Amino acid sequence: MSESGDPRPIGVFDSGLGGLTAVRELFRVLPGESVAYFGDTARVPYGSKSRETVTRFSLEIARFLMRQDIKCLLVACNTASSYALETLKRRFEIPVVGVIDPAAGVAVTGGGRGAPVAGGSPPPRIGVIGTQATVASGAYARALAQLAPGTTVVSRACPLFVPLIEEGWLDHPVLRQVAEEYLGGLRAERLDGLILGCTHYPLIAPLLQDIIGPGVRLIDSGAEAALATAGLLRRRGLLAGADQAPQHHFYLSDERLDFERVARAFLGRELPPTAIVDQTDLPWFERSIPH
Amino acid sequence: MSESGDPRPIGVFDSGLGGLTAVRELFRVLPGESVAYFGDTARVPYGSKSRETVTRFSLEIARFLMRQDIKCLLVACNTASSYALETLKRRFEIPVVGVIDPAAGVAVTGGGRGAPVAGGSPPPRIGVIGTQATVASGAYARALAQLAPGTTVVSRACPLFVPLIEEGWLDHPVLRQVAEEYLGGLRAERLDGLILGCTHYPLIAPLLQDIIGPGVRLIDSGAEAALATAGLLRRRGLLAGADQAPQHHFYLSDERLDFERVARAFLGRELPPTAIVDQTDLPWFERSIPH
Repeated sequence: MSESGDPRPIGVFDSGLGGLTAVRELFRVLPGESVAYFGDTARVPYGSKSRETVTRFSLEIARFLMRQDIKCLLVACNTASSYALETLKRRFEIPVVGVIDPAAGVAVTGGGRGAPVAGGSPPPRIGVIGTQATVASGAYARALAQLAPGTTVVSRACPLFVPLIEEGWLDHPVLRQVAEEYLGGLRAERLDGLILGCTHYPLIAPLLQDIIGPGVRLIDSGAEAALATAGLLRRRGLLAGADQAPQHHFYLSDERLDFERVARAFLGRELPPTAIVDQTDLPWFERSIPH
Repeated sequence: MSESGDPRPIGVFDSGLGGLTAVRELFRVLPGESVAYFGDTARVPYGSKSRETVTRFSLEIARFLMRQDIKCLLVACNTASSYALETLKRRFEIPVVGVIDPAAGVAVTGGGRGAPVAGGSPPPRIGVIGTQATVASGAYARALAQLAPGTTVVSRACPLFVPLIEEGWLDHPVLRQVAEEYLGGLRAERLDGLILGCTHYPLIAPLLQDIIGPGVRLIDSGAEAALATAGLLRRRGLLAGADQAPQHHFYLSDERLDFERVARAFLGRELPPTAIVDQTDLPWFERSIPH
């Protein structure tokens, strides 16, 4: 690291474009940092796939981002964080941050942007929503139990949220009906917080809040992971210097017709000047197709 | 081919398990034939991905099935048939059958199991529903225009049907609401036939018929492709002999927790005695993950 800070980019990956909600928070809290983002649009979604497959995909992507000389890796995908985080941490020397621990920490301690839980209060009651894989992995339940033994965890897989959000039906009555079906039963659980365990869900946060009730704090796992990444870079003296303009690179494993629309929805603004690279040099793209 | 017929299996592939609706028809019309089925559950779905990516995946799978010594290849996936069929036909010597032409043929000629269109009647009006990729490719529109110039084609992408069917919400009011949203506008089109351009859709055929109206003939693309495959094997003398018991093999690129339930829904019965092989020897599964 030079005196002018560490100019290397923060690596971020997700199964698709949902991880841009974490990038949005990185841009907000660390406007001087460069980001190298990878979205695995050729193999999205991960949420219905196995631990072995998600781990293999995650390792391939991490190796690709390592070749872009990243200084840390933010695993924005909840499914990849649930299944592959320990493997990634063992395999790479740079710091690796997942979405599970930061969100779980905020849920039980009121850290981050939330109000702290009062000492002596009963153990918290936390809801977790996510993909089938994230819920089946039990990763949030384990993290919550470790951070605050006695925490009650109520998990619910919501596999239709992602396709509905990707279809852009954010204001469609069908989305409300599906959300009511998934979450209506959670109202009786008297939750303190609800972890949005998928980076797509912040786009429907107002609807979720409406259904779960105003007393339940929503925790945005991607945003909390971005804040945790910022804290880690500060503590380790890895922030970029103020004298350099950030340079962002966005890589996708497959082109998407509606990329601009979806990216804008997740990022909350136009993409900054950037390189969109389809068909990257991941190993499976090196093979050519003879015609 | 020996006097006792050609015992080699019929190769079938799909992006996932939907292609089992075509296998169901193969089992019905060719009970003596062996089937080697590949479902790309690690990279499903194909319907939102690009031509290049879908073609690459299709070639990898076709090469895998060729190593299982198949005598013909049925491309049960509508997206793969739309994007990759010509490439597959050029690359392999065995007969390759897609779902587009058989379904289009039945739609405009009344061939197969339908009633023939009377001579001198006005050109048919055909609806096509499928994934975003199948509709965007224009494959059905081209096939229909070639078979019956003057045919009116009305296409509609229905990306939420697959996740709803996979979630098992077949009798849920949300499915009817989504179907009404997608297809309600087609009622005014006075269609003669509606091509179900995705192997998932036969599972919701009664609902689709109810919404589109009783006068519109539904055409099951997977079943029609199976019938076309049977006809091709008969014409070329490639049927298996009556003295051999069929042996089926089912390969998946990733395990699925709910495989049995979903497979039963598509196949209409329990899977026959078979080898379910997860993590097959496709190229990308040969790499090991160091832990």
